[in-house]
Amino acid sequence: MTVREMLEQVRDQTLSVQEAERILEKENYQEMEFAKLDTSRKARTGFAEVVYCSRKADSHLLEIYRRLYERDGEVLGTRANSHQAEIICQAFPQAEYDALSGILKIEKEDKPHIGRIAVCTAGTADIPVAEEAARTAEFFSSYVDRIYDVGVSGMHRLMSRIKTIEQANCVIAVAGMEGALASVLGGMVSHPVIAVPTSVGYGANFHGLSALLTMINSCANGIAVVNIDNGYGAGYLATQINRLACQV
Amino acid sequence: MTVREMLEQVRDQTLSVQEAERILEKENYQEMEFAKLDTSRKARTGFAEVVYCSRKADSHLLEIYRRLYERDGEVLGTRANSHQAEIICQAFPQAEYDALSGILKIEKEDKPHIGRIAVCTAGTADIPVAEEAARTAEFFSSYVDRIYDVGVSGMHRLMSRIKTIEQANCVIAVAGMEGALASVLGGMVSHPVIAVPTSVGYGANFHGLSALLTMINSCANGIAVVNIDNGYGAGYLATQINRLACQV
Amino acid sequence: MTVREMLEQVRDQTLSVQEAERILEKENYQEMEFAKLDTSRKARTGFAEVVYCSRKADSHLLEIYRRLYERDGEVLGTRANSHQAEIICQAFPQAEYDALSGILKIEKEDKPHIGRIAVCTAGTADIPVAEEAARTAEFFSSYVDRIYDVGVSGMHRLMSRIKTIEQANCVIAVAGMEGALASVLGGMVSHPVIAVPTSVGYGANFHGLSALLTMINSCANGIAVVNIDNGYGAGYLATQINRLACQV
Amino acid sequence: MTVREMLEQVRDQTLSVQEAERILEKENYQEMEFAKLDTSRKARTGFAEVVYCSRKADSHLLEIYRRLYERDGEVLGTRANSHQAEIICQAFPQAEYDALSGILKIEKEDKPHIGRIAVCTAGTADIPVAEEAARTAEFFSSYVDRIYDVGVSGMHRLMSRIKTIEQANCVIAVAGMEGALASVLGGMVSHPVIAVPTSVGYGANFHGLSALLTMINSCANGIAVVNIDNGYGAGYLATQINRLACQV
Amino acid sequence: MTVREMLEQVRDQTLSVQEAERILEKENYQEMEFAKLDTSRKARTGFAEVVYCSRKADSHLLEIYRRLYERDGEVLGTRANSHQAEIICQAFPQAEYDALSGILKIEKEDKPHIGRIAVCTAGTADIPVAEEAARTAEFFSSYVDRIYDVGVSGMHRLMSRIKTIEQANCVIAVAGMEGALASVLGGMVSHPVIAVPTSVGYGANFHGLSALLTMINSCANGIAVVNIDNGYGAGYLATQINRLACQV
Amino acid sequence: MTVREMLEQVRDQTLSVQEAERILEKENYQEMEFAKLDTSRKARTGFAEVVYCSRKADSHLLEIYRRLYERDGEVLGTRANSHQAEIICQAFPQAEYDALSGILKIEKEDKPHIGRIAVCTAGTADIPVAEEAARTAEFFSSYVDRIYDVGVSGMHRLMSRIKTIEQANCVIAVAGMEGALASVLGGMVSHPVIAVPTSVGYGANFHGLSALLTMINSCANGIAVVNIDNGYGAGYLATQINRLACQV
Amino acid sequence: MTVREMLEQVRDQTLSVQEAERILEKENYQEMEFAKLDTSRKARTGFAEVVYCSRKADSHLLEIYRRLYERDGEVLGTRANSHQAEIICQAFPQAEYDALSGILKIEKEDKPHIGRIAVCTAGTADIPVAEEAARTAEFFSSYVDRIYDVGVSGMHRLMSRIKTIEQANCVIAVAGMEGALASVLGGMVSHPVIAVPTSVGYGANFHGLSALLTMINSCANGIAVVNIDNGYGAGYLATQINRLACQV
Amino acid sequence: MTVREMLEQVRDQTLSVQEAERILEKENYQEMEFAKLDTSRKARTGFAEVVYCSRKADSHLLEIYRRLYERDGEVLGTRANSHQAEIICQAFPQAEYDALSGILKIEKEDKPHIGRIAVCTAGTADIPVAEEAARTAEFFSSYVDRIYDVGVSGMHRLMSRIKTIEQANCVIAVAGMEGALASVLGGMVSHPVIAVPTSVGYGANFHGLSALLTMINSCANGIAVVNIDNGYGAGYLATQINRLACQV
Repeated sequence: MTVREMLEQVRDQTLSVQEAERILEKENYQEMEFAKLDTSRKARTGFAEVVYCSRKADSHLLEIYRRLYERDGEVLGTRANSHQAEIICQAFPQAEYDALSGILKIEKEDKPHIGRIAVCTAGTADIPVAEEAARTAEFFSSYVDRIYDVGVSGMHRLMSRIKTIEQANCVIAVAGMEGALASVLGGMVSHPVIAVPTSVGYGANFHGLSALLTMINSCANGIAVVNIDNGYGAGYLATQINRLACQV
Repeated sequence: MTVREMLEQVRDQTLSVQEAERILEKENYQEMEFAKLDTSRKARTGFAEVVYCSRKADSHLLEIYRRLYERDGEVLGTRANSHQAEIICQAFPQAEYDALSGILKIEKEDKPHIGRIAVCTAGTADIPVAEEAARTAEFFSSYVDRIYDVGVSGMHRLMSRIKTIEQANCVIAVAGMEGALASVLGGMVSHPVIAVPTSVGYGANFHGLSALLTMINSCANGIAVVNIDNGYGAGYLATQINRLACQV
Repeated sequence: MTVREMLEQVRDQTLSVQEAERILEKENYQEMEFAKLDTSRKARTGFAEVVYCSRKADSHLLEIYRRLYERDGEVLGTRANSHQAEIICQAFPQAEYDALSGILKIEKEDKPHIGRIAVCTAGTADIPVAEEAARTAEFFSSYVDRIYDVGVSGMHRLMSRIKTIEQANCVIAVAGMEGALASVLGGMVSHPVIAVPTSVGYGANFHGLSALLTMINSCANGIAVVNIDNGYGAGYLATQINRLACQV
Repeated sequence: MTVREMLEQVRDQTLSVQEAERILEKENYQEMEFAKLDTSRKARTGFAEVVYCSRKADSHLLEIYRRLYERDGEVLGTRANSHQAEIICQAFPQAEYDALSGILKIEKEDKPHIGRIAVCTAGTADIPVAEEAARTAEFFSSYVDRIYDVGVSGMHRLMSRIKTIEQANCVIAVAGMEGALASVLGGMVSHPVIAVPTSVGYGANFHGLSALLTMINSCANGIAVVNIDNGYGAGYLATQINRLACQV
Repeated sequence: MTVREMLEQVRDQTLSVQEAERILEKENYQEMEFAKLDTSRKARTGFAEVVYCSRKADSHLLEIYRRLYERDGEVLGTRANSHQAEIICQAFPQAEYDALSGILKIEKEDKPHIGRIAVCTAGTADIPVAEEAARTAEFFSSYVDRIYDVGVSGMHRLMSRIKTIEQANCVIAVAGMEGALASVLGGMVSHPVIAVPTSVGYGANFHGLSALLTMINSCANGIAVVNIDNGYGAGYLATQINRLACQV
Repeated sequence: MTVREMLEQVRDQTLSVQEAERILEKENYQEMEFAKLDTSRKARTGFAEVVYCSRKADSHLLEIYRRLYERDGEVLGTRANSHQAEIICQAFPQAEYDALSGILKIEKEDKPHIGRIAVCTAGTADIPVAEEAARTAEFFSSYVDRIYDVGVSGMHRLMSRIKTIEQANCVIAVAGMEGALASVLGGMVSHPVIAVPTSVGYGANFHGLSALLTMINSCANGIAVVNIDNGYGAGYLATQINRLACQV
Repeated sequence: MTVREMLEQVRDQTLSVQEAERILEKENYQEMEFAKLDTSRKARTGFAEVVYCSRKADSHLLEIYRRLYERDGEVLGTRANSHQAEIICQAFPQAEYDALSGILKIEKEDKPHIGRIAVCTAGTADIPVAEEAARTAEFFSSYVDRIYDVGVSGMHRLMSRIKTIEQANCVIAVAGMEGALASVLGGMVSHPVIAVPTSVGYGANFHGLSALLTMINSCANGIAVVNIDNGYGAGYLATQINRLACQV
Repeated sequence: MTVREMLEQVRDQTLSVQEAERILEKENYQEMEFAKLDTSRKARTGFAEVVYCSRKADSHLLEIYRRLYERDGEVLGTRANSHQAEIICQAFPQAEYDALSGILKIEKEDKPHIGRIAVCTAGTADIPVAEEAARTAEFFSSYVDRIYDVGVSGMHRLMSRIKTIEQANCVIAVAGMEGALASVLGGMVSHPVIAVPTSVGYGANFHGLSALLTMINSCANGIAVVNIDNGYGAGYLATQINRLACQV
């Protein structure tokens, strides 16, 4: 119901003033004692609300999973630890936990997947962040190609996989240390590159700041940056682009 | 000609070894005394090389415009000052200069435009960066809607334009000071938001660092960040997304 | 007219659906070619829109002053330079310009003033920022006491004026260098202290960062901090508090 | 006794020189072996001294609570851990401990409360800091409304509660990540907004620096910032403003 | 007159209450329209007030020099530019200006000098800061030895002058770039080393931050650091130490 | 033996060339397997080498204490933990350990003390650093006055002790959070103030950076800064100044 | 086989097109499930791939050691912990582990060594990083001289060893705190100095940033800097230089 | 004359004690009124002193060139502006000035050159820094290959020149923005790569900090970093390595 439709119903007295006021003001979230579940998010943005598990109390987490599962039949959680995984898997035997990425999800079976997203990492230590990105994109129904350990200190490894990368609608470049992978990819492909700096490295990497600055200052075009270690954000954004490319 | 095709021609001796070696190694850029024009860029990335005018010597600038114009029939330059504009406009009477954004271009007439990109700014001081983004996207054949001065200190201004924004394939959010516009937009639309922090502000904004950190740390999803004041980069990335959405 | 009242008029058909839609969505700002004047701000926040003059084009500035003057009969502008002052004073002979603070205003005569705000500075170099604060508060109808040059390197100067300071509903502490004035005041008075770090100093003051960090980390209670050199923001906030204290 | 009164008593020899000297110089704090209890603070600032429990030795903590309780009949402690809570609750059975906020207090019964303060958070992870603010304000006799989980990524949640927020004399905005909540609130309400950046977030939030910079650089007016995670400071300042508004 | 003496006079009625109140509260500074001259500073600290000329208005500067000269018969000004020097030298023909250090002073003739302070620089570009230090110390009656251009990239230059340096009561080490001079001196001499980082250098020296961090983190003992380029502060502190060593 | 004396002995053949070469080049430190004990330090600087215990292996620590004790009859160690204290106290029953400051020392009995140093802290949490300073100064034979918990949020506490502070040859100001104590002391006393920033605080204090910047930027004169939490360095420097004042 | 040779074989049909394509594109790394071993690195750079052990899973580590050992007969690992050492030493009894530096290697016997590299440290706490550098250089067949604990607070210790240092083809200077050692060495020797900042220190050293800035800003020539604590990188680079000097 | 030889002459009385003392202490630099020319530098380091022209007074500059020319017959100056070039070229008609790099030199004719250094830049804006490096290396007798504008956004340009680069004894990589060129080169060549971050770029490059952090954190081996824009330092270091490779 659009605002105009609602106003017309008020005029035609098929909708009471009180009801209209309520619609205009609230009803697009669900009040919980400790949170406000954003139940209109899927309509608004095309994505259901995702649970950021880190530091949530056990009982709260369980309740949130329960409510979201009831409404949508599936739930995506990120940054879950193994203790939280146990609690959710006990209550929902169909839940799956990937310890590497911290993804804890209940997923509908046989969902169709569309398009193609390439997830690349510079080194093996960047894989946890890459998996968070890849699994998020898959949950939201994108096909994902994983191309790991193709950092710029051995360019030939990247070169040998460049065709696969070029076929994707969107490339996610996950890199720590100096983060140069994003620039090199940006110069090679025609589709957007989402750069994810990671906190991998030591010394003057300052917990990922070094890679973040590298990526933000890239001399290549078509590079967009998300927060340090934010695999989830990259997977979400890549899915938006992939959906656009598939006319969803 | 793919690598495989070239190798087949060598085998069939329709291509000499010397020629093949030359193809494999160079020939995809044009050596100038002072630069290497990246002439294979359009084939590789779908975008012709763009001229970053800032601090280029007059004679170099003129020569670069001449070569690119000869090959492509049009040239896009960014960060040009009025002196540079005079020089180029004298040599190419059809060149156009926009002093606000610093865009100095020679453009083919009657180019078709596709899709839709929304360019929003928080305040009026952010408009120069927004225009760099908008004009870049237009040069690369995207339709652009401009929605300026809709910062979060007066949310109703933004609310009144939200329908236009939602119709775009991609939204560019240009904001300085605390840069909250990107987060608010990210929570409202279903398509990607490209956030451009600007150096607008004073005091502890540290030349745009404040807005950059805000945008990188956004609690909303679907937000990608480019460099401070990098309107060109945002326009380029938005075009990539817009083209994907239009199946180009 | 509240939302409820408007909806009732729609129901009673004394207001058309189109009109109601227009009211709900726009009409609370004034579209200009280059900006959106926030004309509902006074109703929303109790303060009319203020003009941040810095970097505005001459014609835009004049037009904004004209529109605001027509509606409100007075205009407050900040960060104006002498060239802008000339332009405005020529068009509005009753306009006044204070070069020290950059305040350029047209003010109604004989406005009543209420309450009391104390504006203190650590040194003489902090006075321009303090004047921006004081004149903003005065424009918004607060009485202001100025107590300048009472920095902590000579505590007796501050001590001799402490009674005046204690009588104010709100104290503004303007200080650069190490910014210790705010902490000392915070320990002495019972009302809120608004701390304004200034960029006054040299070396490791990093354009005001030093004073900002000092004030944010103050061991004293009742201290709130605004941006570096943001006298206007402090004057605005102090007025809000002063009005509350005077039951306005 | 004012300075003048004291001097008159000296002149009239109803007060000895030694006594007057003692009054002028000390006696407004209580020397403990390990600290100087600021016993004149309530007279000076309207608030009794509050105990910052973190890192205090057990015996010191107990002794400080004992002395303050003897004098005032109540004690407010912040940043207490569960071990410290056990020690104090054993000695003072009427003491109450809130593990979420770390508030450990002994409070007089049936204190009257005045005015109204709104405490808002962007997310659920910001609640501990918000509770420190709310409970501090309540201890100092303010009414508090809690409006939690209304961050800008879902603006409708905030919109539905805006009337409650507008009725408060002072709004506390608690937010981590990019901290945009303060700016949005600042543009909506007419009373002061106290912004509390939190260390909630990851990656480039740099332990709250990101939210701090956002809030300090806010484009909205009427926003004052306290230290990262400093709920206590915000509750104290809000109480000062609330008291002024209630003519206390 | 001590507080006790004053109180005794009040008791004995040789001093009126009004007069005593005035003494207790003010009279130890001189109110000017634009500043509060700290006239009790010499009594309190042993040093007369010094004029920080930078950014002072011409008329204010002249008035301050006039008042200080009347009271003390001499004036020390720092950070004066050549325009300010002209104004002061015209009014006070006996004034002297050193353009290198920015010192603009009127000095009593034939003042006795005491002790010995060594002022060392790493390079020639550090000399302006060193001269500010040296001339400040000389104005306050210390003997000064200048040992310039003895940076650690040629240790033999420093070694050849080490005896002179060791004879001083206090050593001032002025260095930019990496600022290693302070550490080397600290390991060689038995008296305090005052380290002055300078903004000399380029690239990652960040306007003196590099030298400041070097000096603060020195592995040598007996090193105290003042602000970047703060020659005046070093000269002041060295004089305090030199006076102590000479039992002044 | 000076260089000249040595050369004269070579000329007179009372010293062999080989021996002179050895003297010129080495012999002023003691080679250990894992370190080079700087045995000429006392002659060079007036202070014996001090042991920085942190992270030293048990066997190395014991051996260093043994060698230094043999040569000097006493040893000062800093940053020792309780495990290290046990090891040293077992081997040297006369050793003393102060857990608060981490000082672990073997000290000659009945050493005479001279002069006077005042050690002040802003709060009780700064006491560990202050004790490191005080005990270092005492070990090196200075009298020390401790004035703790006199921070600027309650100026009267400081005022009541100001006479004691003024009598010292040197004042050490230890403060965390915003570190304003040093500035206030610098404006009150005539002798040098050594400012020690501490890492006490939370939020935007950034592990002491806030206090460090405050102190480096102090508007008061006569303030020298040492590293964050570096009580030892302050005690050392204060002793140098105190010795000079006592003509040692 | 060069590109030209390969193309000639294709022309002569002694090499198939498929095979040539494969050679051009891949085959210079070894695909593992979790990584891409860079097997062409030795040919390309003269150094076999080195294993960065930190955070590698046990099974992955073992497999990597096995593959590299099979191909090269030796393996160099860095940043290994004792648990990893146990696993590798059990599988390869000839493996050696140095707990101080974290080097875990299997090395061919009786490798010849060449040239000379001097590894210097400022203090004893810098030795772990220095050993990582020294052992890396030795593994890659360089002779190494260790000169430890020669920091600038006791210059005579460095002076006594300067001849040994001057004989090396390359000097590695390892220092934390203020990192001045590199500058002093740079002014003394004619060969390159590789500066390694370490995270040794406390307070404002910011985990090595202080030493890094010192070294990058050195006033001496011939100094190159690697990452904080990056002993391995320094050893690698020194070996490159040493090999050049020995005409390898 | 070595120290031993000198001591033997003293013993044999062919050298006076006074003379020997003088030799031991000074004479290896030349005292000028404003500087200490380091005349023993060539003997000590193999390079004559180089003049850093920036901010030197005209008369000082001329005198320094005169003295160095007299002793060595040639002079290398860096960071000279055109005014300084005029002054020197008037006095020394054989002097040459390169405005791009700021190199102002008087050079002996027909000097032999040795070895090979490759100087690469990422973009055309990096060329001034690269020329400073190249011309420094050439002055010190190295052959130099210039490979400009081969940044990673167009990898094929770099690939086509890789053979030339591999033949050099040392590679200088000059890059601003994100500075990824150094990492890519480090992964490709077997000789040392000297990375020079430049201040080229805008926004979050923070005057070269971005490129500096990228290069310091490089995942490739064999990379050493010099200061931002420090072409001279890179040319000097490359010459040291080139000389070693040529057995000079």
